[in-house]
Amino acid sequence: MATLGDIGVSALINILGAFAFLLAFALLRIQPINDRVYFPKWYITGGRTSPRNSRNFVGKFVNLNLWTYLTFLNWMPQALKMSETELINHAGLDSAVFLRIYTLGLKIFVPITIVALLVLIPINASGGTLFFLRKDLVVSNIDKLSISNVHPKSIRFFVHIGLEYLFTFWTCFLLYKEYGRVASMRLNFLASQRRRAAQFTVLVRNVPHVSGRSISDSVDNFFKTNHPDHYLCHQAVYNFNKFAKLVRKRERIQNWLDYNQLKFERHPDKRPTKKTGFLGLCGEKVDAIEFYKKQINDLDRRLTMERQRILKDPKSIMPAAFVSFNSRWGAAVCAQTQQSKNPTLWLTNWAPEPRDVYWKNLAIPFVSLSVRKLVISLSVFALVFFYMIPIAFVQSLANLEGLEKVAPFLRPVIEMKFVKSFLQGFLPGLALKIFLYILPTVLMIMSKIEGHMALSELERRASAKYYYFMLVNVFLGSIVTGTAFEQLHAFLHQAPTQIPRTIGVSIPMKATFFITYIMVDGWAGIASEILRLKPLVIFHLKNMLLVKTERDRVKAMNPGSVDFPETLPSLQLYFLLGIVYAVVTPILLPFILVFFALAYLVYRHQVINVYNQRYESAAAFWPHVHSRIIASLLISQLLLLGLLSTKKAANSTPLLVALPILTLSFHKYCKNRFEPAFRKYPLEEAMAKDIEDRNSEPDVNLKAYLTDAYLHPIFHSFEEVELTEVRVDKNQTQIPSTSVNRPHNHGPSPSASELSSPSPPHHAYNYENQPPHTLIHQYEFDQQNYPVNHYEVEQQQQPYDVFHYGADSSSNGYRY
Amino acid sequence: MATLGDIGVSALINILGAFAFLLAFALLRIQPINDRVYFPKWYITGGRTSPRNSRNFVGKFVNLNLWTYLTFLNWMPQALKMSETELINHAGLDSAVFLRIYTLGLKIFVPITIVALLVLIPINASGGTLFFLRKDLVVSNIDKLSISNVHPKSIRFFVHIGLEYLFTFWTCFLLYKEYGRVASMRLNFLASQRRRAAQFTVLVRNVPHVSGRSISDSVDNFFKTNHPDHYLCHQAVYNFNKFAKLVRKRERIQNWLDYNQLKFERHPDKRPTKKTGFLGLCGEKVDAIEFYKKQINDLDRRLTMERQRILKDPKSIMPAAFVSFNSRWGAAVCAQTQQSKNPTLWLTNWAPEPRDVYWKNLAIPFVSLSVRKLVISLSVFALVFFYMIPIAFVQSLANLEGLEKVAPFLRPVIEMKFVKSFLQGFLPGLALKIFLYILPTVLMIMSKIEGHMALSELERRASAKYYYFMLVNVFLGSIVTGTAFEQLHAFLHQAPTQIPRTIGVSIPMKATFFITYIMVDGWAGIASEILRLKPLVIFHLKNMLLVKTERDRVKAMNPGSVDFPETLPSLQLYFLLGIVYAVVTPILLPFILVFFALAYLVYRHQVINVYNQRYESAAAFWPHVHSRIIASLLISQLLLLGLLSTKKAANSTPLLVALPILTLSFHKYCKNRFEPAFRKYPLEEAMAKDIEDRNSEPDVNLKAYLTDAYLHPIFHSFEEVELTEVRVDKNQTQIPSTSVNRPHNHGPSPSASELSSPSPPHHAYNYENQPPHTLIHQYEFDQQNYPVNHYEVEQQQQPYDVFHYGADSSSNGYRY
Repeated sequence: MATLGDIGVSALINILGAFAFLLAFALLRIQPINDRVYFPKWYITGGRTSPRNSRNFVGKFVNLNLWTYLTFLNWMPQALKMSETELINHAGLDSAVFLRIYTLGLKIFVPITIVALLVLIPINASGGTLFFLRKDLVVSNIDKLSISNVHPKSIRFFVHIGLEYLFTFWTCFLLYKEYGRVASMRLNFLASQRRRAAQFTVLVRNVPHVSGRSISDSVDNFFKTNHPDHYLCHQAVYNFNKFAKLVRKRERIQNWLDYNQLKFERHPDKRPTKKTGFLGLCGEKVDAIEFYKKQINDLDRRLTMERQRILKDPKSIMPAAFVSFNSRWGAAVCAQTQQSKNPTLWLTNWAPEPRDVYWKNLAIPFVSLSVRKLVISLSVFALVFFYMIPIAFVQSLANLEGLEKVAPFLRPVIEMKFVKSFLQGFLPGLALKIFLYILPTVLMIMSKIEGHMALSELERRASAKYYYFMLVNVFLGSIVTGTAFEQLHAFLHQAPTQIPRTIGVSIPMKATFFITYIMVDGWAGIASEILRLKPLVIFHLKNMLLVKTERDRVKAMNPGSVDFPETLPSLQLYFLLGIVYAVVTPILLPFILVFFALAYLVYRHQVINVYNQRYESAAAFWPHVHSRIIASLLISQLLLLGLLSTKKAANSTPLLVALPILTLSFHKYCKNRFEPAFRKYPLEEAMAKDIEDRNSEPDVNLKAYLTDAYLHPIFHSFEEVELTEVRVDKNQTQIPSTSVNRPHNHGPSPSASELSSPSPPHHAYNYENQPPHTLIHQYEFDQQNYPVNHYEVEQQQQPYDVFHYGADSSSNGYRY
Repeated sequence: MATLGDIGVSALINILGAFAFLLAFALLRIQPINDRVYFPKWYITGGRTSPRNSRNFVGKFVNLNLWTYLTFLNWMPQALKMSETELINHAGLDSAVFLRIYTLGLKIFVPITIVALLVLIPINASGGTLFFLRKDLVVSNIDKLSISNVHPKSIRFFVHIGLEYLFTFWTCFLLYKEYGRVASMRLNFLASQRRRAAQFTVLVRNVPHVSGRSISDSVDNFFKTNHPDHYLCHQAVYNFNKFAKLVRKRERIQNWLDYNQLKFERHPDKRPTKKTGFLGLCGEKVDAIEFYKKQINDLDRRLTMERQRILKDPKSIMPAAFVSFNSRWGAAVCAQTQQSKNPTLWLTNWAPEPRDVYWKNLAIPFVSLSVRKLVISLSVFALVFFYMIPIAFVQSLANLEGLEKVAPFLRPVIEMKFVKSFLQGFLPGLALKIFLYILPTVLMIMSKIEGHMALSELERRASAKYYYFMLVNVFLGSIVTGTAFEQLHAFLHQAPTQIPRTIGVSIPMKATFFITYIMVDGWAGIASEILRLKPLVIFHLKNMLLVKTERDRVKAMNPGSVDFPETLPSLQLYFLLGIVYAVVTPILLPFILVFFALAYLVYRHQVINVYNQRYESAAAFWPHVHSRIIASLLISQLLLLGLLSTKKAANSTPLLVALPILTLSFHKYCKNRFEPAFRKYPLEEAMAKDIEDRNSEPDVNLKAYLTDAYLHPIFHSFEEVELTEVRVDKNQTQIPSTSVNRPHNHGPSPSASELSSPSPPHHAYNYENQPPHTLIHQYEFDQQNYPVNHYEVEQQQQPYDVFHYGADSSSNGYRY
């Protein structure tokens, strides 16, 4: 076991490591060549169009200003400068509230740390049970400062119990205030937004098939009957998975074409060639540029055909639709009420904002959804508790004797020295590493299979699954040795009152482990987050191989976003550690504090300068954060109960039993009090906004504004003529004259002037602040992951030549 | 342990007992003097005004027709004659669906019984483990037919597992069909009803206090703003608990007055007197009639004052209101949506129908509701698990030595022989009996404290609590010996996998006990239900002492209603027993079948001839019935799992583990599929009914119809002039001319003609079938538990003399 000195050394190493990362970051970020890696947000919002300090040729790549090297830590105060209101305008409410989790952590743990250190350390240290044990073998100095050091049956345990009460009340008080604050921030944010399509639109699923009637007709008919005063129009949802696959393929080939063209430009003497066979390794040698050009033409033809098939085949219309209303009130009513006698038909929900929609899951029928949920819950359970089984299987391969026995023909290969050492030394660890690396992806795929309809919800679900995994395998798994499966087995065969005792008794001993964990995973992890090593390398590679125009360079920039599915669970784990160890081993708390403070600085910098959220859910994740912290409180209370019962302080248990009950009822109260703000849209708000709108803009054409808001991303790539045809096809009430509003057909419109400006059009991103009639246009530009025509910028002289399908949609973002 | 022969004897005794009850019933029911006890429903619906066979004087009291004595069992076929549609019209949907629970029981258990007896009995009987044990000591013949008789590790257990699967699927199949059927019956019932106030009305609670503004103003303002196209009017809720107490007191004195007046009429030579002191035992002797008349005058004056205080004091208006809309659609929307930013204010719910409202709970604020729920859940938990503690305390009084030690001065009393034998022999049992007798009342009071707002919901909650009590104390308590508290202690200190094993292993041994239980509690209980001994005695007592007029006789009739809080839980216990024992000891099943068949017949008779439901909830209790049967399935699966694991058939457990998961997901599916029909009112339905109404009666004055629908029962006793004043007071938008619609001001209206008809006005009960403008009038008559003026019938020449407060409200029904 580690002594205080060992911890000190470890802390020093980790602090040095984190410091090295920060130093590297400080040096790299001031190089103009890396400007698009470390400040992409400013390019996107239009605050910056080229690196600063670009006075001469060398200055374009390397920073020659010595002064900036000396002030290399000045990003920290810079990160703190922006006020919260500015932050919300700059990066959205999701990011601002995400940062509030860290300040909440600081608010909770700073007073707890002070009180715990001042009160508990003297009480624990003077207890002295452990002094008679051999110091260097069993007990570390850390343990002497922990609750283990107190005599059994000691009256001092009442101090611990009192502090547990105090800390619980303090945490609940802050949680209550914070929940109220976030809820009102959310409502204010929603209220302060200008007109948004999502406010008027409801997603309807499970539209019943009526023979002899199209889905569109059914929808139209149903809502005209049942919402006669409020229904405006609807947009059908098409099944276009095959089309999307073709678009992705075309995009890949376009990249190869770009690469070869660039190569040819740089070495005009030698035309690039390519072999047509397997992986370009064998087969006939052909001219690469011609080859790819031909392939692209081929794909274009297939895309046209596929598109026409989708439009003509009634089966490609899925039984779902985005239904728009003429007021927020009408939409709020429709989203919150049951429509049909059969509650599995005509399911209505708030529509997620357009960029948040996960199109592929819109058509899952009700029965299938139930089955999927069941299957996925079972799989998550299996994954959490039995994930070691496949890994142990892979690891058993490293048992070379066994392997040779099973497959004797492999003996010559295995006996080779290189192979043998590789298998024995590398493989076992590799399997686990690979598993942990792909775990978030696996969880995300599971969430997708579960059938959620918004990206934000998918991320929340994946995050919940990851949290369960961490709770069982990192927290419990570290405390109780043995795999999760063994724990499960043990728990099932133990009395329920025995479980907290088993875990509780080993908690103090694991404090040193968790301190190391916080330093390695927390401190160093956060420091490496700010360095952005992977995006840095990829950006420069892309820059070298693919970038031809300024627009390509914009594309090569990958700002990323807050990675909720991974960040939230690990954050919640730190809350759990802090709350559990607050009364047990308070010496752990300062390490948590350092983590929260450092992470707050780093993420504030990243949110301001780097990240570009893919969607805005208006802090919809807060209820999850809240309930996980409540769960942490409950876990800590149960474990303390178990720990104290092994300390024979059994008389005190009735005191502690009351605490979980109080905490649970606090949670229930908060749920009733605040959660509706995150699930429903109060009619009072909707009506107030409606009236405000009606007074300020009485003659706005809402129908024109809403008609295309939820147009399937695929249609954004169609020709104007066809688009009108599509609209008529999907909604017969559509007046064709609305296409007049499409800005890029007409010269003097705000967005056309935007197009001709030298800045990349990405600052149309926060489209809530734009006049409503530019929305459709923005859609074709603001999303890297939408199939839009990137030639438009260079080819403004031919505005009708928009017949290209999503050639620049980047690989990361297809939502189907 | 009982042998098959013992069971047979016991069965015979119980059959004879039940038969005696039935015989007594058959004889009593054909006596004309008992006609109002056994056929009150027909009097209420107006189908009968006087007993049949009333040809001569004697025939009025005793049945002289010998033929009817020979066909004394003919109530059974009569009870089966009425079709379900007629039944719904006659007794309401609640009763019809209540009877369906019994047919569901028959449908589930008839095939199960046949299969189980044919398949399992041979398999179990030929097993023969138990033959080597001493027959008469440990093992009964019943056990030889049960699963206990099968060898451990036998392959035969797969038959049991297979049958458990089969029975589960069969039960789920029937449950699914029945749920769908009941849901559609409910929607049809709601759709087939004529205009009802509840369809247009929403109950709003937690109206915020705004200083300088009355609650009525706030409500009016809020709904005019947020539901401008649909809001019609609202009715305030007054706090009149004190008034109600006075009304109850007046009613009690009125009874004494009636009694004394009757006494004087019968013996005109002697005026009845009364002593004014304690309990009428001491004090001055006064003339009783004068005394009570004076008291009533006194009370009338106090009532007038109290009423005026309520009307003038703004504090007597509670922060709740019944808000009415001009369409069902508007009300459905308001009931299902969130109104305010703060989700604890402006809570909206469907209004229960007027006679279902529990007025007293309307004003409970949100925070208090949460606290009440927590406190009551803890109390129920304590009641279920620790109820033996106070009883054991009372029982310990029977330990006379202990009592004498504690209170030596009691020695002379205790040593008296009579007191001693009473204390020792009677008291211990008495304490338990009294507890069990008052338990339903206690549970109902708990539910009232919990703050539910409708009588129907109160009954459902009380029923749920009673079910938990029965499950723990009757089912588990009989299987595992020891008090519930000891069980709880044992379970907390056992591994979770050990619990089903502990219970499972004792299940087969308890079969004989439960067979006896079914016969005593089920068969004899049901047979005594039909005899109506208590109402019979009370009716004749009232008839003798209080009845002066025909109307008094109507009042003395107490039809009662289906006692959901007691009947549903015991019914669910029988389902549990049947399902648990189906594979374990199938010989128990025929006894259950007899119970279901007999109970079906009896309750069908009672529903047709006796019961008069106090409210109509449109089968709102069905989801509870469904989920309790599902819970029974789960319990049976877990117990079988435990039982088999003690039989070392551990290899089969994976097979059985799948079953609870499947059952649970079936339950979840059903919940999603059907439950909304019981909680929400689909907009499609509301709109269809609205359109239908608009077409059939385009010019109905809805506002006049709705204004008084939820008028507090107290106002029904006011003078007309004051009533108008009240209405203006509570709702300034009210046009005073609506009082023109009140029928009993005006001669030629349908209800006025009803009044002059000789039949009691109670057949206005199913008021959904009445023309809408008679509703208010019906309200003053159809509820025994409303304070209405019973003089009106006799005093038709003075229709304005309605200044009497609820003199005839019976004691059972005050809802405040």
